Amino acid sequence: MKSLPEKTIERLSVYRRTLLNCLDRGKEYIYSHELANLHNITAVQVRRDLMLIGYSTTLKKGYDVRALVELIGEILDSEQGLNAAVVGIGNLGRAITAFFKGKRSKLQIVAAFDTDPEKVNRVISGVKCYSMNDLQQIISEKNISLGILTVPPEHASKVAEAMVVAGIKGILNYTSVPVNVSSDIIIENYDMTTSLEKVAYYVKQYSTKKVQ
Amino acid sequence: MKSLPEKTIERLSVYRRTLLNCLDRGKEYIYSHELANLHNITAVQVRRDLMLIGYSTTLKKGYDVRALVELIGEILDSEQGLNAAVVGIGNLGRAITAFFKGKRSKLQIVAAFDTDPEKVNRVISGVKCYSMNDLQQIISEKNISLGILTVPPEHASKVAEAMVVAGIKGILNYTSVPVNVSSDIIIENYDMTTSLEKVAYYVKQYSTKKVQ
Repeated sequence: MKSLPEKTIERLSVYRRTLLNCLDRGKEYIYSHELANLHNITAVQVRRDLMLIGYSTTLKKGYDVRALVELIGEILDSEQGLNAAVVGIGNLGRAITAFFKGKRSKLQIVAAFDTDPEKVNRVISGVKCYSMNDLQQIISEKNISLGILTVPPEHASKVAEAMVVAGIKGILNYTSVPVNVSSDIIIENYDMTTSLEKVAYYVKQYSTKKVQ
Repeated sequence: MKSLPEKTIERLSVYRRTLLNCLDRGKEYIYSHELANLHNITAVQVRRDLMLIGYSTTLKKGYDVRALVELIGEILDSEQGLNAAVVGIGNLGRAITAFFKGKRSKLQIVAAFDTDPEKVNRVISGVKCYSMNDLQQIISEKNISLGILTVPPEHASKVAEAMVVAGIKGILNYTSVPVNVSSDIIIENYDMTTSLEKVAYYVKQYSTKKVQ
């Protein structure tokens, strides 16, 4: 299957989360418009996304939630699972680790790294913390291919480079500086300022319109 | 000016962050291709975004960083500034507050809210924490229009509703459940699982391609 549009990938992840919530509540079928309403998008968008992944079963009672969760899993997950590590286990690193814990069987945070001797060798938010000096060894031993970068911004570039050298294939960068690594590494820069500024922009636009 | 595309808004926020970093390092001019390289996008994209906001000054030595920062500010910021609050000050709430502190003069986190009596009336990550019972009063007193939702998922919907009742106009939802509020409220759902799953998907695609 060829690569799906980035926005579809994001929505599939979001649909799965919602569908898993449905199963938890004992809901086994869902209509496209229900799924759409839950995410403030149109039912057409939902149907288009699901068509892209080859889901076409239209039952009178809606989509089969369990089957859809399984199909999305086949698209998003690696068969043998992927291991991730949090690099820099401050407040944000802890929040992410705790947030993610036990959420997905095929994608797990299996290690944390930090330079602080107080943290090294402790279990933090359910994950063992290792010294940054052991980055290469642990990443190789534990077959870690994803890194979540949550170090202070002044260390971001150097640490990202070390992660790549150690064998990391994808980096989710949560620091406030963009990092540049070799082009065969998948990188997703996420800046929390951006989301907040975006909401602020729309609030501003909305208030201006109301005044006019 | 009419609404800009969502992705342009996001990039403007990201450009400004980079441009401010440039100024910190004493760099006063920047070429579109430099700005592009720093964000793994094309120079054409950068020029298109800046054209959309009416920036057309092409100097031989590149864009005037200070002027560009100012123009982006006029687009993104509200003239009188916007106040934000973090609702739920656990690890993630703290990380966001600390991350954002002092970054923007026109968009500031001015309060935190929590139900934990141990946190109420304390200053956490530089911001005063209030009781959830005082949500309405403080939001009105401090003229807060943006809320950052970082409560446990089981409280997300109820707390989001309370925020809207209290006068919040935009919500950045960091919980793992989507929240539905009245349609005149700006809502941005951000799920950390999604970013990580997206990177994981691309890593998987990339490895598959290499094997083929």
